[in-house]
Amino acid sequence: MKSSRRSFISTTIAGATAVSLSPLLGIAKHFTHQHGYHDGKLRLGMVVFDGFQLLDVFGPLEMFGGLRDKISIFLISEKKGVIKSSAGPAVVTDFSFDDVPLLEIVMIPGGGGTRREVNNEPFVNAFKNLVEKTPHVASICTGAAVLAKTGALDGLKATTNKRAFKWATSQGPQVNWVKQARWVEDGKFFTSSGISAGTDMALALIERLYGHDTAINIANGAEYEWNQDPHHDPFAELNGLKD
Amino acid sequence: MKSSRRSFISTTIAGATAVSLSPLLGIAKHFTHQHGYHDGKLRLGMVVFDGFQLLDVFGPLEMFGGLRDKISIFLISEKKGVIKSSAGPAVVTDFSFDDVPLLEIVMIPGGGGTRREVNNEPFVNAFKNLVEKTPHVASICTGAAVLAKTGALDGLKATTNKRAFKWATSQGPQVNWVKQARWVEDGKFFTSSGISAGTDMALALIERLYGHDTAINIANGAEYEWNQDPHHDPFAELNGLKD
Repeated sequence: MKSSRRSFISTTIAGATAVSLSPLLGIAKHFTHQHGYHDGKLRLGMVVFDGFQLLDVFGPLEMFGGLRDKISIFLISEKKGVIKSSAGPAVVTDFSFDDVPLLEIVMIPGGGGTRREVNNEPFVNAFKNLVEKTPHVASICTGAAVLAKTGALDGLKATTNKRAFKWATSQGPQVNWVKQARWVEDGKFFTSSGISAGTDMALALIERLYGHDTAINIANGAEYEWNQDPHHDPFAELNGLKD
Repeated sequence: MKSSRRSFISTTIAGATAVSLSPLLGIAKHFTHQHGYHDGKLRLGMVVFDGFQLLDVFGPLEMFGGLRDKISIFLISEKKGVIKSSAGPAVVTDFSFDDVPLLEIVMIPGGGGTRREVNNEPFVNAFKNLVEKTPHVASICTGAAVLAKTGALDGLKATTNKRAFKWATSQGPQVNWVKQARWVEDGKFFTSSGISAGTDMALALIERLYGHDTAINIANGAEYEWNQDPHHDPFAELNGLKD
């Protein structure tokens, strides 16, 4: 079942001709009509906020950047403009929550700024709206805390940063948090463990969308030794976490 | 000899009290007087240009960002402003080559934009000037091509991206290019292999400056499985390169 679902999604996304299959999962229609597939590219939006963690954002975007002919990458923030990372360097966002086009993939990173944003009701509500209408949703690190705060993960399995596990999981008491996992896939959600784990998860999502060979080729091009096993997570035990 | 040099540099950089040792290497004086050590932090400048590779920049900066109390991080470009990565997302730089303060560490990433910058004489000259006055210099990926173009690597060992090896090495015919290496240290220069390799190199430079325990602690905090062996480089063979 799992492998047939995987191959269906791959086929759907690889071409825009799968409309007749749309009743099966409703995804093809999503991509070809509701979503912005007209320029021949999927749209990936990464949400950022002051105090975001650099590698949470740019590990995954490096890997998706290897699909330049297939995917357009955008940065999104509550208000469009210059957003400063926790380490100092600043980015310029392409869209605000108000003017972002329909996306096929949305991601949210972690970082110190999540401690503020989980209590920023307009941010959480706008992000929730984006999550609901986007077919693939991913979080990196404590980005899972903000995602959990929307309620979207309730009843689903998810993971988050291992050093900040207690705080992050407290934002979603109805989520089935997994302690030992590099990343977790449940339904349309991919949630990853701390910082670097987002890069491994991004390649898993690329594999899900475009197949194993594409993911391996991107990892090799980035000279990246991909941890392909979502259960390989030495950092859970290092932080005293065991399922 | 190597280990005593390492411990000397660690001591020198860890405190501002090592001025009396300065004649030995000239480094302590450098840090306490010529360089901007007055706010108690080292200055790390990452040079960017249109078409820079995301992870080349943000893998290393993530790791150095773990030393927030010890290091300030800046982005530098030929002209200060908004600089677009090869994958799309844009950053805002803090300084131009003309107004950048004295740095203790300067880094240059790779990316498609290096093909243009190696032939941009004002860029190469300004970068050369920065390289000459900075005590630690690092390149990531094809950033080594620009660094080689300054002549600074002539007669030294260095490495670069394995897929773009032929082009990058052609920019420095007097450099002793190493085919199989995750990164290479020679004198004040650290050069790393493609994209992801910069993260491993950054941790090696952190180890050199602040010791092994600090580097491990930063890697663990980022949930990053650090490749600590500069000779472990499966991507050389994958690209038909053998020393």
